[in-house]
Amino acid sequence: MSTRPIFVVAGVGNASGTGAATARLFSKAGYRVALIARDAKSLQDLASQLSESGGEARPFVIPSYAPQAIRDTFSAIRKQWPKEKGNEIRAALWNAAAVVWKPFLETTDEDVKEGLEVNVAAAFAFSREIIREFKTNGLNELGKRGTLLFTGAPASVRGDVTTSSFAAGKFGERALSQSLSKEFGKDNIHVAHAIVDGYILTDRQRASHDSSWETNHDVRLDPESIAKAYLYLANQDRSAFTWELDLRPAHGSL
Amino acid sequence: MSTRPIFVVAGVGNASGTGAATARLFSKAGYRVALIARDAKSLQDLASQLSESGGEARPFVIPSYAPQAIRDTFSAIRKQWPKEKGNEIRAALWNAAAVVWKPFLETTDEDVKEGLEVNVAAAFAFSREIIREFKTNGLNELGKRGTLLFTGAPASVRGDVTTSSFAAGKFGERALSQSLSKEFGKDNIHVAHAIVDGYILTDRQRASHDSSWETNHDVRLDPESIAKAYLYLANQDRSAFTWELDLRPAHGSL
Amino acid sequence: MSTRPIFVVAGVGNASGTGAATARLFSKAGYRVALIARDAKSLQDLASQLSESGGEARPFVIPSYAPQAIRDTFSAIRKQWPKEKGNEIRAALWNAAAVVWKPFLETTDEDVKEGLEVNVAAAFAFSREIIREFKTNGLNELGKRGTLLFTGAPASVRGDVTTSSFAAGKFGERALSQSLSKEFGKDNIHVAHAIVDGYILTDRQRASHDSSWETNHDVRLDPESIAKAYLYLANQDRSAFTWELDLRPAHGSL
Amino acid sequence: MSTRPIFVVAGVGNASGTGAATARLFSKAGYRVALIARDAKSLQDLASQLSESGGEARPFVIPSYAPQAIRDTFSAIRKQWPKEKGNEIRAALWNAAAVVWKPFLETTDEDVKEGLEVNVAAAFAFSREIIREFKTNGLNELGKRGTLLFTGAPASVRGDVTTSSFAAGKFGERALSQSLSKEFGKDNIHVAHAIVDGYILTDRQRASHDSSWETNHDVRLDPESIAKAYLYLANQDRSAFTWELDLRPAHGSL
Repeated sequence: MSTRPIFVVAGVGNASGTGAATARLFSKAGYRVALIARDAKSLQDLASQLSESGGEARPFVIPSYAPQAIRDTFSAIRKQWPKEKGNEIRAALWNAAAVVWKPFLETTDEDVKEGLEVNVAAAFAFSREIIREFKTNGLNELGKRGTLLFTGAPASVRGDVTTSSFAAGKFGERALSQSLSKEFGKDNIHVAHAIVDGYILTDRQRASHDSSWETNHDVRLDPESIAKAYLYLANQDRSAFTWELDLRPAHGSL
Repeated sequence: MSTRPIFVVAGVGNASGTGAATARLFSKAGYRVALIARDAKSLQDLASQLSESGGEARPFVIPSYAPQAIRDTFSAIRKQWPKEKGNEIRAALWNAAAVVWKPFLETTDEDVKEGLEVNVAAAFAFSREIIREFKTNGLNELGKRGTLLFTGAPASVRGDVTTSSFAAGKFGERALSQSLSKEFGKDNIHVAHAIVDGYILTDRQRASHDSSWETNHDVRLDPESIAKAYLYLANQDRSAFTWELDLRPAHGSL
Repeated sequence: MSTRPIFVVAGVGNASGTGAATARLFSKAGYRVALIARDAKSLQDLASQLSESGGEARPFVIPSYAPQAIRDTFSAIRKQWPKEKGNEIRAALWNAAAVVWKPFLETTDEDVKEGLEVNVAAAFAFSREIIREFKTNGLNELGKRGTLLFTGAPASVRGDVTTSSFAAGKFGERALSQSLSKEFGKDNIHVAHAIVDGYILTDRQRASHDSSWETNHDVRLDPESIAKAYLYLANQDRSAFTWELDLRPAHGSL
Repeated sequence: MSTRPIFVVAGVGNASGTGAATARLFSKAGYRVALIARDAKSLQDLASQLSESGGEARPFVIPSYAPQAIRDTFSAIRKQWPKEKGNEIRAALWNAAAVVWKPFLETTDEDVKEGLEVNVAAAFAFSREIIREFKTNGLNELGKRGTLLFTGAPASVRGDVTTSSFAAGKFGERALSQSLSKEFGKDNIHVAHAIVDGYILTDRQRASHDSSWETNHDVRLDPESIAKAYLYLANQDRSAFTWELDLRPAHGSL
């Protein structure tokens, strides 16, 4: 159908984690998907998978998360699916992150700068494009114009030894999501923030844990389960928006 | 089917609010429902409605929320649906509350006592019965033994002018839910707490607002939307449990 | 002025902890001290000590922290130091606590009830007497009518395994302090809550730690240092009231 | 001792606010003061005032809060007061801030960048120099090597309409202070964060309020009262460090 809603996800990594799982679930739920990441190969593979499964997805390789690059990416998305033909962006996930865990005295100016650029400044630029898109939408059957989701972490709410730089960025991103939630709720725009409090079963985490960890469903988060939380949030109606929820494995958190 | 899971809900009031809406949704989702409240008439009517809609529900009138009365109620539930015949309680909602909003100097010892008895002590007694039940269950297809839900309020996280007594109770209930969540997560028991941050569309709130409020979906919470949050939580699998989420109307909170 | 201000402290225990240290420091700072506790012997000894050091202190043995017993105690304080003779209660510390650490399923109705009675209901009754006293005072040189202090704990902000009952009470007490702070700030009454996040060097803790713990100033809280925080709070002027602060040893918290 | 401890304060503005008041109080309390700000005239005037009052203060004009400029400033401080002559930096206040209050869609990339540079990246660079200094100190009579203070705001803990950029920076700064507090507490370095929750009586606020506001001590914060909080924190001993406290006028917060 030509008017299926569009879901934009930034931060798909190597397609084994939260961003990719969410793309798959939203695709299955009837969204077209705009995939944004820096790794062209993974992005193309994921787009192909989604298309083979009956979805419609396009890769948008981004050279960096600089604000201008983000704006260029939205131009490319709009060129692919022009607004004037009824294509509406109705959901988005900011899942990109620059993760640095270092003792404070080893944390360089450059670490701090990069962390802030990706975790905060890029989140602002992405949010600006999304909020502008949402404001041009009418209300859907849930009484909302769109849902903007953020992936948080324990470092979003707790500064800790070795997380000074990462936490500074994640705190800042959370502040952004709370401000947006309050400012644009009255426009029926829904902004939500998930605190993912545990290790996610990604290729990268698989490599740094032993095999029993992978098979133990009680100790790590499945990307698919995080994706379900995001789809649930996108499906909340205007009478009951969640700004924040936490997600952690049954047997405990980080 | 004889082995449909049982959902126990305490605090159904006059059946126009969160407890009743959640009972309806869980009934529709395949749960048998044990309804607990003090008002026999509303409880019977709701049970009849659920049965007429193809569900299976039983009213359990409780004379008060004293711990012994709660234990007696669970005995009655177990008499109705004996464990040895494979009847398993798999979900529960503690939705009872004693609401007092008074200036502090008008708040009596009795107000404080009653507030603590219903909002905290009864929640402990209810939780004890539920946790004991859950511990006798095997893991279900989601990898969990059961889900225990609590209805919180802004007063669960913020003491304010005129809410000293109510907030003391709701803070206490929240502490209980967090402790349970940490202690029994390792038994694959899921405990969650929803902060309902706004007025809910109940008969009582209808009476105290003008008609435009009722028809404005942006300013109040539909009980059905809260119920959806509870069903979503009950359906979370063991890799990603939420302890706490907030829910508020698009156009703002209390 | 001949009528030195009165400081009322409830919860002096065996006089080795926070309540006693605060009594000593306020006595030294020019307050007369009303000591409230259940242990007559310790109370009398502490009162004698304070008097020998040039202070003026009176023991008020309380049979329990039931609301009526608290009111009777204030009557006794007022009989000792009548308001009509210019005796003004200007500061107070609620330091009484019922501490229970038990696995949830071993926590009895009685544990919960007692915890709520001391940690919450008694705190309400004590606060009511104090707020009423403060409201009869004029503004002092700091522009305030009085300062009401509460001793919190990690369990005031975090429910945990084995702390369900204790945390429910401490959360409730914190809610009370926040409500009071907001309701009576506009009467220039200052209400503050300290989260004491670590073991305090008391006789009881000495007995359960080895001797190196006692001599290591980096790992436990000196009651005298907590007392200094309370005196600092009592000395804050009306332009800058603190509601909450945390206190923990340099080398870490509980 | 001939070598009085040094207090470094960054963010003195036009010398009418928190930074200047704290400089005055620490000077009076026996610290030499290194004043850092961008406005040379105000800085020189304040340094002269402090010297005339019997203190010892030096202005360090900084062209910007870029990390290199911060490092250069510390080099200048060290040139003035060489470490090898026993001059020890024992306390510091990060009070610089870039304040932007704008609706989100008017907030530019440049606003975000500047906010992050001053409120977060510069705070990192300043903290790095200070922590390195503190680590070279021995324990003082309070059992600590130094105290690093941060001035927070409501936007440090709450994102709101029109504060997206400011809150992102202040959240980030708070994360930094919490991380430092945890990482360096074990080195007996004390890091604290004050949430100043109200308007401060500065020249700038005077200009935007009517005269009754200035004379009403119940509705705004005196810089001197904030300074007292900072001196109290610097004087806490190692057994009881506060990481965070709030400060607000008796009659309410922002």
